[in-house]
Amino acid sequence: MPTTSFTEQELDNIYAFAVQLGKNAGKLLLDIAQSRWKGEETQKVAEKDSSVDIVTKADEVDVEVFIKTSISQKYPDHAFVGEESYSRGPSRHYLISDSTPTWCVDPLDGTVNYTHMFPMFCVSIAFVVGGRPVIGVVSAPLLGQLFTACRGRGAWLNETHRLPLLRDPTIPPLPAGAPTGCVFSCEWGKDRKDHPHGNLYRKVESFLNMAAELGGRGGKGGMVHGVRSLGSATMDLAYTAMGAFDIWWEGGCWEWDVAAGIAILQEAGGLITTANPPEDPSTAQIEDVGLGSRLYLAIRPAGPSATESGREGQERTVREVWRRVRNLDYDRPGT
Amino acid sequence: MPTTSFTEQELDNIYAFAVQLGKNAGKLLLDIAQSRWKGEETQKVAEKDSSVDIVTKADEVDVEVFIKTSISQKYPDHAFVGEESYSRGPSRHYLISDSTPTWCVDPLDGTVNYTHMFPMFCVSIAFVVGGRPVIGVVSAPLLGQLFTACRGRGAWLNETHRLPLLRDPTIPPLPAGAPTGCVFSCEWGKDRKDHPHGNLYRKVESFLNMAAELGGRGGKGGMVHGVRSLGSATMDLAYTAMGAFDIWWEGGCWEWDVAAGIAILQEAGGLITTANPPEDPSTAQIEDVGLGSRLYLAIRPAGPSATESGREGQERTVREVWRRVRNLDYDRPGT
Repeated sequence: MPTTSFTEQELDNIYAFAVQLGKNAGKLLLDIAQSRWKGEETQKVAEKDSSVDIVTKADEVDVEVFIKTSISQKYPDHAFVGEESYSRGPSRHYLISDSTPTWCVDPLDGTVNYTHMFPMFCVSIAFVVGGRPVIGVVSAPLLGQLFTACRGRGAWLNETHRLPLLRDPTIPPLPAGAPTGCVFSCEWGKDRKDHPHGNLYRKVESFLNMAAELGGRGGKGGMVHGVRSLGSATMDLAYTAMGAFDIWWEGGCWEWDVAAGIAILQEAGGLITTANPPEDPSTAQIEDVGLGSRLYLAIRPAGPSATESGREGQERTVREVWRRVRNLDYDRPGT
Repeated sequence: MPTTSFTEQELDNIYAFAVQLGKNAGKLLLDIAQSRWKGEETQKVAEKDSSVDIVTKADEVDVEVFIKTSISQKYPDHAFVGEESYSRGPSRHYLISDSTPTWCVDPLDGTVNYTHMFPMFCVSIAFVVGGRPVIGVVSAPLLGQLFTACRGRGAWLNETHRLPLLRDPTIPPLPAGAPTGCVFSCEWGKDRKDHPHGNLYRKVESFLNMAAELGGRGGKGGMVHGVRSLGSATMDLAYTAMGAFDIWWEGGCWEWDVAAGIAILQEAGGLITTANPPEDPSTAQIEDVGLGSRLYLAIRPAGPSATESGREGQERTVREVWRRVRNLDYDRPGT
């Protein structure tokens, strides 16, 4: 067990610290955002003589510095990997070691949303032990939503509603005809090259297969209940943990985009594996995804049906998605 | 002016009634939704021996009956068009007359979201005079968001924040290179036929044009900042009024899906016209859309830049969208 280096009491303490840190960072982000409504950014933009993107970048840096400082004061021996520090660093290698407890932080996931003040943005804080996220805290302050989880302690919305939301008396099984009946969450991403073998076309072909009528697209039509794109990998994972999305499929994210979301999803009972279909989707082993893999397929928590366990339903759904999607082309030095 | 049959005082009173009705209906919808978390629906599902969709349908009917009854008690002379009553009626004609003040109501927009408990669902209430929506109230209770507007009185989020949110000291102009830099909101909808000339392919080709790199797709690549799909036309319009989405393009909705959202968007300063490009997109007159047209293109409120007025920026953006999208095939008897 990756958490064996911490006692349960130590883990409780770190979890409490992480939750409070998430609340504080969310509050800071909201305060900065609201100052934009009040016109207080005008001076800032004028000084920099540039676009709102640059202001957003400054906001991100402020929040990351706050989080990093808070952590290093409380836990000077822990490592820190943050979106902002990483982007400015020289390496694109995966930097989370199995031997050092590491905080993996995105001070602002859903940057485009934040720039436009669409509420689907958040602070994402994960605590990773032995290479696996064991604590996740996601604060989406403009939505008033706080998602928290720690291994063995359940996953929660606003500290009051256990995830998934629909769980009493039982968590609903996945639909018998999945992906039909499922809400499918996916993102268009930043790679927009007009190239038939580029990621844009690989994605759109996959989206189309999932959406098209049953029997269509050469048998690949999945007739999902709905297709959703929020522009935030972290929020996609949080809503999959909540049970609102049945399937999330995405490539190209980095570990800080997903670490907290994975902790929350897994603690809620969800499954996360790789986005790219193996050679034989119908028989391949379904393994947990590596944190730095950049390729993710998540399935919501599921209860048993009359004919299968929740895990069997999740694995069946994974195979049905793999049958309909193309390989995405995102690589990673060092993995 | 379509509101001339009401004094300003009368309109104030109707607006206050509509806002309170929206709050009450939102509360009712939230109570019903939360009863599902508590397992209270189990009995209901068991009795009907069917899926969660049927339970959702019952919830919708309950909310519509509540709204319709409240209106008919207060304003017995006003007409009522509601999604539920309409669906059960014999006609698919456009039923809103120019001569009778009409309430146009969707008790639950974002039905699929509601079924899955994804928070992007809402109650939508519009008051239509002379064929134009003059009051709009949208309550998204699980998000804690209430959008309200009445002609001449501004558009508001939670009665405290005027829309669009970013407005101080000025509302941002549309990007000079729009659609580049814009958040583009669109929906996959229910028409999933695997037919090259069907709406699914017309939509996806349009989405791809908007998303692809500049210069790509035969010059149609729009390189939008982000593509978003929420699964609720009403919420799409509300977020366009808020300024969070720059562009919303959609076909296939009905008047109750959009009436309240249009009132809010227009009062916030947004523009709404038809989704389908005219013969010459670069010179055609840009007219306000008809409520029952089923084809909509909305542009967010915009301030002036150094070189053009806000309206000029909106019209420029409309033309750039028209240049990139295909005609959608949704018709309407009686229009």
